[in-house]
Amino acid sequence: MEKVLSAVVKAVNDAKETSPLSGSWTNFTTINLVANAQLAVGGRAATCFLPDEAKPIAAISKSIYINAGTLKQIARESLTEAAKAAVELGKPWVLDPVAAGLGATRNALLKDLKPYKPTIIRGNASEVITLANFWELQTAKKGNVEGVDATDTVYEALESAKELAKWTGGTVTVSGKTDLVLNNKEIYAVSGGSDMLKKITGGGCSLGGVIAVYAAVAEPLIAALTGSVVYKWASETAANSTKGSFSFQTAFIDNLSLLDAETIRTYAETSIRKMVKA
Amino acid sequence: MEKVLSAVVKAVNDAKETSPLSGSWTNFTTINLVANAQLAVGGRAATCFLPDEAKPIAAISKSIYINAGTLKQIARESLTEAAKAAVELGKPWVLDPVAAGLGATRNALLKDLKPYKPTIIRGNASEVITLANFWELQTAKKGNVEGVDATDTVYEALESAKELAKWTGGTVTVSGKTDLVLNNKEIYAVSGGSDMLKKITGGGCSLGGVIAVYAAVAEPLIAALTGSVVYKWASETAANSTKGSFSFQTAFIDNLSLLDAETIRTYAETSIRKMVKA
Amino acid sequence: MEKVLSAVVKAVNDAKETSPLSGSWTNFTTINLVANAQLAVGGRAATCFLPDEAKPIAAISKSIYINAGTLKQIARESLTEAAKAAVELGKPWVLDPVAAGLGATRNALLKDLKPYKPTIIRGNASEVITLANFWELQTAKKGNVEGVDATDTVYEALESAKELAKWTGGTVTVSGKTDLVLNNKEIYAVSGGSDMLKKITGGGCSLGGVIAVYAAVAEPLIAALTGSVVYKWASETAANSTKGSFSFQTAFIDNLSLLDAETIRTYAETSIRKMVKA
Repeated sequence: MEKVLSAVVKAVNDAKETSPLSGSWTNFTTINLVANAQLAVGGRAATCFLPDEAKPIAAISKSIYINAGTLKQIARESLTEAAKAAVELGKPWVLDPVAAGLGATRNALLKDLKPYKPTIIRGNASEVITLANFWELQTAKKGNVEGVDATDTVYEALESAKELAKWTGGTVTVSGKTDLVLNNKEIYAVSGGSDMLKKITGGGCSLGGVIAVYAAVAEPLIAALTGSVVYKWASETAANSTKGSFSFQTAFIDNLSLLDAETIRTYAETSIRKMVKA
Repeated sequence: MEKVLSAVVKAVNDAKETSPLSGSWTNFTTINLVANAQLAVGGRAATCFLPDEAKPIAAISKSIYINAGTLKQIARESLTEAAKAAVELGKPWVLDPVAAGLGATRNALLKDLKPYKPTIIRGNASEVITLANFWELQTAKKGNVEGVDATDTVYEALESAKELAKWTGGTVTVSGKTDLVLNNKEIYAVSGGSDMLKKITGGGCSLGGVIAVYAAVAEPLIAALTGSVVYKWASETAANSTKGSFSFQTAFIDNLSLLDAETIRTYAETSIRKMVKA
Repeated sequence: MEKVLSAVVKAVNDAKETSPLSGSWTNFTTINLVANAQLAVGGRAATCFLPDEAKPIAAISKSIYINAGTLKQIARESLTEAAKAAVELGKPWVLDPVAAGLGATRNALLKDLKPYKPTIIRGNASEVITLANFWELQTAKKGNVEGVDATDTVYEALESAKELAKWTGGTVTVSGKTDLVLNNKEIYAVSGGSDMLKKITGGGCSLGGVIAVYAAVAEPLIAALTGSVVYKWASETAANSTKGSFSFQTAFIDNLSLLDAETIRTYAETSIRKMVKA
């Protein structure tokens, strides 16, 4: 565990010191919060929508973030090209299967992405279950995403997450009251945080964007753990000092921009728990 | 009047307690504020742009919000499909004819929407007059929208609003310094609020989105009245404690997220006034 | 210099008093901040994406803002039509060549815009150099935009900026730690400000949008100088009273909404420096 905690602290510091560029393909509702959260933790942000930008943005980025929310028609082509470019250029990429199950274009897109094996998948429980179904990795259970909201618990998504990690060889984060973060070898639970994060839009998307920043400076499992623990700390701390939802949002992003590695380390000691692998 | 006040209080509480999902088809400038305002008052938000999402989002939503701002090419098809799906599935839907009169695509779209008879129409005075013209319900007066801003007063739009309500059988809100809220039987004026709401973008759009939340839990007239009175109270209260435009925005959304039904009731007693129908 | 300072103060006041409408064609990441910054300094905002809106929005606007960030496919046609309409209707227009060099669509678009000679160009150093290359005005040096970030200093872009001003007959702003603002006759440096502006997304784009507001009420050189000095003052003052990035953003927009002409005049006296033309 000491090794994990040190790696998390190092990721927090490295993002602040090296300001890596993470190219994003993300949704319109939360695009501004995603970019601001990425900048806050020390990264640099740039968002694209056109297929012809897939290779150039992958070339100059240290990691890529792909989010399936509020799609336009070109998205099926663009996001597939973006994933392909990331793989071809050896850049880690994060998939956020927002609203998986809603609409023919989105569902076709998510199926198309299977061969590009995302380095990290981050979704809520219902999105993770739905994605595992779409990729025909686990068919016993069907995810039930209600718009962008989960109707399943993170533990109900555990088997789906395992199957996804088995297919991709990468890391999967199931976000919820407690986040589950796992790869083929290990499973971690990250607890804490605040429900206030659900009172603003973009809590999940911006976590995906921030995990992409950390994926630019750390191995996938550590990147995902760092994102989760940073979000749990920043939201819990913000909720302690605010009441309204926009005051909370301000304090939350402020906290991300003022991350102190040692504070995160102390928080992580109780927040991150290693689970016995089933 | 007591009946109206009780229904408004009930709508405020029911939105907070039942967290209804309202699917939105909305513009890019204010999309984030719309979603955050909907979340703040207790609703859940999800935004779509593609025609293939019209039926699935209507199916899982309790109400639909359609906003004609910053259109893309696909919008004429998408927004019409969204309205059609709402009608077919019996979900109340709110039309926000933003910038009516600006551009051939927008004007054609707004004309297309006539047969789907929105449950609630919310616009500024010039948008309401322009829409009544487009629908050939009232031709004596021409609306003159300047970009997204009204150049007419709410009272100048009263006849147009009545004609729209007559056609749709639903409710019409004309937003302004005082909001007029009416259906075929009654006309209400909702006063109060603050001009500061015009110093941030999205005051009108997010009101449309919030009215959609209330339309998920209350009858149309009450939903529209509740949205207006909540906005008047939240903006007036926010303006009393802030000076700059973004501090105002934070306080305004904070207020929406901290709505207290009894405070709203007290405010509504003086804010909502029933007008003698002409 | 006294003449410049008086003109800057007059621009600040005129924007607040006349509330000019500036139509924008801008990117999705920062669209909300652009509109809010325009409203804060006293302008009115309306954003378009469709070619059929080019003429109507130019007709009712006092100035036009065109930003090349996060393009959609239609953008090549739309933004060219928007520039053309501004020229035909004699409205000043501001070009923000965001991420110049990234992607075939963007690069083709920027080349297409050459004949429409923007009244004001605002970009970071690398964008300005790249644009001068695209327009074959200066080929000795190649710009190296990294996503949306500059890798060159403003002084390295000086010759490119001069060539652009020579071609357009207008004004060019190179934004950076110090902003260079020049036309065919004069060069000014505007110093001050805060690095915190780089910790939020949209600092550059919203400056472009605000310059468009001032271009509606002042001649191009004064409009560009006013935008720069207002941004230097508002960001420096906001940074002095805040720590986190979103508290900074709130204080920054608040400051724009509370501009006091005399405070700006005093700040401008030391911030704006006339350079000897090379």
